[in-house]
Amino acid sequence: MNYILTDENAIYYECGYSCDNALFLKLGDENFFLTDSRYEIEAKEMVQNASVIIDKELYKLANKIIKKSKIKKIIFDPKEWSVLNFKKLKDNLKVHFKQKIDLSHHKRVIKTQQELEILKVSAKLGAKAFNRLSKDIEKKGLGRDEFKLTYMAKKALSKNGKYELSFNPIVAINENSSKPHALPTDKILKKGDLLLVDAGLKYKRYCSDRTRTLYLENDLSFTINQKFKSKKIQKVYDTVLKAHDEAIKRARSGMKAKEIDNIAREIIIKAGFGNYFVHSTGHGIGLDIHEMPYISPKSNTIIEDGMVYTIEPGIYIPDEFGIRIEDMVAMVNGEAIVL
Amino acid sequence: MNYILTDENAIYYECGYSCDNALFLKLGDENFFLTDSRYEIEAKEMVQNASVIIDKELYKLANKIIKKSKIKKIIFDPKEWSVLNFKKLKDNLKVHFKQKIDLSHHKRVIKTQQELEILKVSAKLGAKAFNRLSKDIEKKGLGRDEFKLTYMAKKALSKNGKYELSFNPIVAINENSSKPHALPTDKILKKGDLLLVDAGLKYKRYCSDRTRTLYLENDLSFTINQKFKSKKIQKVYDTVLKAHDEAIKRARSGMKAKEIDNIAREIIIKAGFGNYFVHSTGHGIGLDIHEMPYISPKSNTIIEDGMVYTIEPGIYIPDEFGIRIEDMVAMVNGEAIVL
Repeated sequence: MNYILTDENAIYYECGYSCDNALFLKLGDENFFLTDSRYEIEAKEMVQNASVIIDKELYKLANKIIKKSKIKKIIFDPKEWSVLNFKKLKDNLKVHFKQKIDLSHHKRVIKTQQELEILKVSAKLGAKAFNRLSKDIEKKGLGRDEFKLTYMAKKALSKNGKYELSFNPIVAINENSSKPHALPTDKILKKGDLLLVDAGLKYKRYCSDRTRTLYLENDLSFTINQKFKSKKIQKVYDTVLKAHDEAIKRARSGMKAKEIDNIAREIIIKAGFGNYFVHSTGHGIGLDIHEMPYISPKSNTIIEDGMVYTIEPGIYIPDEFGIRIEDMVAMVNGEAIVL
Repeated sequence: MNYILTDENAIYYECGYSCDNALFLKLGDENFFLTDSRYEIEAKEMVQNASVIIDKELYKLANKIIKKSKIKKIIFDPKEWSVLNFKKLKDNLKVHFKQKIDLSHHKRVIKTQQELEILKVSAKLGAKAFNRLSKDIEKKGLGRDEFKLTYMAKKALSKNGKYELSFNPIVAINENSSKPHALPTDKILKKGDLLLVDAGLKYKRYCSDRTRTLYLENDLSFTINQKFKSKKIQKVYDTVLKAHDEAIKRARSGMKAKEIDNIAREIIIKAGFGNYFVHSTGHGIGLDIHEMPYISPKSNTIIEDGMVYTIEPGIYIPDEFGIRIEDMVAMVNGEAIVL
C-alpha cells in the first residue's frame, strides 16, 4: 500500500517524530519524511524508518518524488488535506489518488503494548489531576465563577503547565451542565451545587479523558459515588452510573461498537430519559482525542483486543442540569478494563 | 461579495463567536452561522449579525442554504477547507466556487482600534511573563535541562494556566539556539550560557510573540541590552539588535513589506552574516500567530496604518549559537511603534 500523510499525529505514528510542516510518503518499500530546514537537525536525529529530505516546498518535492517512483496509485485521507495543498501535490501527476477516510485512524485503532502502557499512565495522571482539582476547589473554589474554575482545572490538569491538555476543560455548574459542551459563564459555585468536570491531559502525546459530576455538599470529591439531595437528580445520576458500569462490564471483544452503545442506551431509555442522551456512548482515544472506534448507535466496527475508548453516557435535562460519567477503557483478553 | 468560512478564527472575526464545528456564510445581505446542537445555546447568545442555524450535517445544510439563495458565485479559501468537507459542500451545486487564498487574513490585515488595544495588552502581558520567567530561572533554573526550562516558560507565559499560549515556547541553550525552531533537549543551563527564549500568550484570543537572547552571567535579565564575554557572540548580537532597531525605526506606512525586510537584511549582510539570516524579518500577528503582512524579501504588500507585525531578525551560526530579537509593532501615524 502506497500512501501519503500530512497530519502531525499520523506522521508521528509512522516514524516517531513530527512537526508542524512535514509530509510522510510510503512508496513501495521506501519511506520518506519531508520537512523544511527549520526542523532538519531534529528530524535527522529522531525520524525512524524513513529518509529525511529537506526542502522549502514540501508539496512540489513530494510531487517530484512520486513522479520519480513511477508508482501509479497512492492512498490519501481527504480529511487531512487542504484543497490548496492537495492541488499542489497532484499538480501534473498522472497518478491515481485514492481516498481513504481516516486512513491513519484505521491503522491506529489497535494499540500496541507500548501504546497501552502510555495510555494507562496518561489516564492515571488525568485521574490524579482530578484529585488535585478537588482539593483546589475545596480550598478556594467556592464563590468563584466558571471562568475561574476552568482556570483552576487547566492548572490542575496541566500540573502548572507541565502537561499539555487534551482539550479545553469543561467545568459547568447546575443548569450550565445541561449543555454537553458547555462554555464557562459567570455562574458562581456554592454549596448544594451540581458540578460537572470533563478534562484530560497528554502524556507522551497520548490523550486522557475523564468526566465526573458531583454534588457539592459536605465533602468535595470526584468519586463516582455521589449522593444528591434532589431525588430527581439522584435518579438521573444513578441511571447514568448504571449505564456506564454495565457498558464497561458487558463490553466484549467481538461485539459491534453499536452493541456496546446499546447497552448504555437501553438502560437510559428504560429509565425514561432516552430523549436526553443526545450523543454517542464513547469514542476511541490515543494520539488524537477522538479516534476509532466510535461507540455510537450506528457503528458496525467490531471491537477487538487492544482497542482503547471512552464510556461516557450522559443525560441532559434542558435548563435544569446534566450528568455525565466518563472513563477510558482498554480491551484486554476480551473484556474492557478501566484505565 | 459572497463567501463561506470554516476556520475558527476567521468565523470569530465575522461574528464574535466560534467553536470547533461551525460554518459562516455571507450570501448577499444575509449572514448565517451554522453549528451543531452542542453549541446551540452559546451560539444563539453570542453570535452577532448572523442567523444561527443548528444541524448535525453542516456541509449538507450549507449546500441547501446556497442552493436556496440562487447565488451563482461564492468565494472560499482553499487553505481552510479539507478535501472531504469541500466535496460535501459542493455536492451537486451549480455554483462557481472561486478560490481566494488567505481570504480572512486579507480582511484582517488592518486592525481596528479595538483590536489594536487588545494586541497591546497581549504584548504587555507577554513581556510581563518574560519578567516572571527571568525570576523563575534565576531562582531555580540553573542546573535544569531545556525540558524543565520549557515547562517553566509555559508556566510563566500561561500564568499557571490562566492564558493560552500562542505556540509552544522555544527555550534553547548555546548551540541549540542555532536552530530557529529548536526543540528542547537534555542540555543543562549553567553560568556563562547563552539562552534564547521565544514565546507568546493569547489575550482575548489575540496572540503575543516575543524573543529575547541573553547571556547568563551575573544578572539574569531578558533586557534587550546584553553583554557577552565572547567577542564573536557580541558582534553577532549587536548586529541583530541593530537590524531589529533600524527596521523598527525606519519602517513607514507606504513602504513595501520587502523594503522593511531589506532594512534588517542589509545590516546583517554588511556585517558579513547574510548567509546566517535564514528566515523572514517578521510576520503579521492577530487572532492567528502568523498572519499578513509577511515581512519577507519577496513581499510586495504595501504597509499601512493599523497593521501589526513582528520584527525578528536572527543570525544562526550552525553548531555554535543563534541570536534572535523579536518585538511586535503596530503602524500608527505612518510609523512603527513597539507594542
